[in-house]
Amino acid sequence: MAHDEFSLIRQWTSRSDGQEGDGLTVGLGDDAAVFSPSPEMEIVACCDAMVETVHFLKETMRPSDIGYKAVTSNVSDVAAMGGYARYALVSIAVAPHWTPEECQGIYDGIYAACDMYGVKVIGGDTVSAPDALHLSVTVLGEVEKGRPIRRSHARAGQAVFVTGHVGSSAAGLHVLLQDRQEQQSVTEWSGRWAKLIAAHQRPVAQVKAGRLLLESGVCGALNDVSDGLASELWEIAEASSVSICVDAALIPIEEEARACALQFGKDPVEWAFYGGEDYQLVGTIEASEVDAVRERFAAAGILFSVIGAVEAEQTAAPKLSLRTGESRTALPKAGYNHFKRRE
Amino acid sequence: MAHDEFSLIRQWTSRSDGQEGDGLTVGLGDDAAVFSPSPEMEIVACCDAMVETVHFLKETMRPSDIGYKAVTSNVSDVAAMGGYARYALVSIAVAPHWTPEECQGIYDGIYAACDMYGVKVIGGDTVSAPDALHLSVTVLGEVEKGRPIRRSHARAGQAVFVTGHVGSSAAGLHVLLQDRQEQQSVTEWSGRWAKLIAAHQRPVAQVKAGRLLLESGVCGALNDVSDGLASELWEIAEASSVSICVDAALIPIEEEARACALQFGKDPVEWAFYGGEDYQLVGTIEASEVDAVRERFAAAGILFSVIGAVEAEQTAAPKLSLRTGESRTALPKAGYNHFKRRE
Repeated sequence: MAHDEFSLIRQWTSRSDGQEGDGLTVGLGDDAAVFSPSPEMEIVACCDAMVETVHFLKETMRPSDIGYKAVTSNVSDVAAMGGYARYALVSIAVAPHWTPEECQGIYDGIYAACDMYGVKVIGGDTVSAPDALHLSVTVLGEVEKGRPIRRSHARAGQAVFVTGHVGSSAAGLHVLLQDRQEQQSVTEWSGRWAKLIAAHQRPVAQVKAGRLLLESGVCGALNDVSDGLASELWEIAEASSVSICVDAALIPIEEEARACALQFGKDPVEWAFYGGEDYQLVGTIEASEVDAVRERFAAAGILFSVIGAVEAEQTAAPKLSLRTGESRTALPKAGYNHFKRRE
Repeated sequence: MAHDEFSLIRQWTSRSDGQEGDGLTVGLGDDAAVFSPSPEMEIVACCDAMVETVHFLKETMRPSDIGYKAVTSNVSDVAAMGGYARYALVSIAVAPHWTPEECQGIYDGIYAACDMYGVKVIGGDTVSAPDALHLSVTVLGEVEKGRPIRRSHARAGQAVFVTGHVGSSAAGLHVLLQDRQEQQSVTEWSGRWAKLIAAHQRPVAQVKAGRLLLESGVCGALNDVSDGLASELWEIAEASSVSICVDAALIPIEEEARACALQFGKDPVEWAFYGGEDYQLVGTIEASEVDAVRERFAAAGILFSVIGAVEAEQTAAPKLSLRTGESRTALPKAGYNHFKRRE
């Protein structure tokens, strides 16, 4: 960045001044950040990129939504290990058609999400891009030593569960893209579909659910729903060498998403399986512990739904199937391949 | 990425299979990586992005050079804290005009650098980009608790030093861009200027020098030369509230860089101050310890040059000046603003 731009970056990241302490010994403003992990904890590290026109459009996401979601998608990955996030490094490549105010908006969203998840921005890089804005966030978190929840630990006989509702983000995106085609302003839709649009623009990572699952000690495999239920369940099936069967009637789909699907002639179950970006947690638990875990979730006010079961362990050919009434169909893996391909 | 592309990514990153152990409890292939830091060490974290047309061109960097340099620039940041790198997360956004073979080349360069620095790739994200390739790497390293070398700890009376040679990378870039303008092939130049071209394409992070400086216990401030000596010394001067004076005659410039500058009618000292990407270390040490540190570096076979001194501490107006013979001029901060602006 040129020097006049450098002062802008300072301004965007000014929220991170004077943040040292609580384990952080060097924050922003040196070659690298330095921190001490908490005793008895391991470090959880992940990284997610969002690219303009591939993962979002200016018409479907406000700048602050983009920043917020970039943090959420990473915190969600940490939650899917049973951990919690502590630090973020933000790499942003700004294209010429993004104004300083819009960039400030992205950082506002980043900091809003960081505040919510208790995360400090400790580093990053700000550069120019020729064409599309790129935002890549690395999040570092913590999890109890030897306790991270793997996606490879599903076992035959376990119940398959999901937290919250799924398909809402895809429903919200559908509304936003429809809106874009019809040249209507977002506000016209926002009244009726505000909840779905918020699910797409401001998804929330399920940190508390992940912590409950880790503490329960009975969680087998765990994934976050970034690419749709089909893709996440396939990952668990393949990593664990098991087959999974889920029941369409048990998938927790919000009333608004069903109404939206009805209005646009869509299938809300398809949104749940191939939509993605719900950032709920999907996984397996010991069948005998379902009631106990359900009680823990109820006490925490988090929706918890058993949606199926892990079937025979197989080393050669893991499978994912969907039961709808009496019939049973194999579900293909191909999920959410970024909305550019779905328009 | 679509699913046919997923198998390619697996192939690119296959080098990271089965790498768990030695502190790494979860490697690639789950929602996030998990590792235990070494006892008595703090975590060092940094992030650098490289964007096609802004930081490199296909004509000046082979794919493997791009991957290699992206890792080096981060490892160099860790070295500038006195630490060493351990893990990397690679976020890559691939534009349509990059072939799978070229992407494999980028990863080959990433792994070549990682092998050299003892770094494991433990995570990342691979996505599509509409136009230019973006590569953002996060590196996590370690440094002894309470020992990281800050850029804010320069004190009046300390000597200013730099490791290795500076300006070579800028000289190499000049040759490559000249070559591009004249439509000559790189091989025609490589005979005479191979060393300078290598300095630009395959710079090496000064991890050992950083460790020597930390172990010496007499290093004040430290930076790595990513943006040219002027920018790095200004950062130290401002962060430490001091003025710095360097002597043009003491700047370690390679014979080849001087010859190259002569041939192209350029000033090699300007390359050293405003070129960048040398990834040497520049900093300050106690003046009384110069001989002892020089001996340590000589024993390690690393060039160590005292180039100036820290002058009066000032809270209000830090300064950077250059002595050339009897005259003394103020050096502006503006340094290396990516070669796009310099063509």
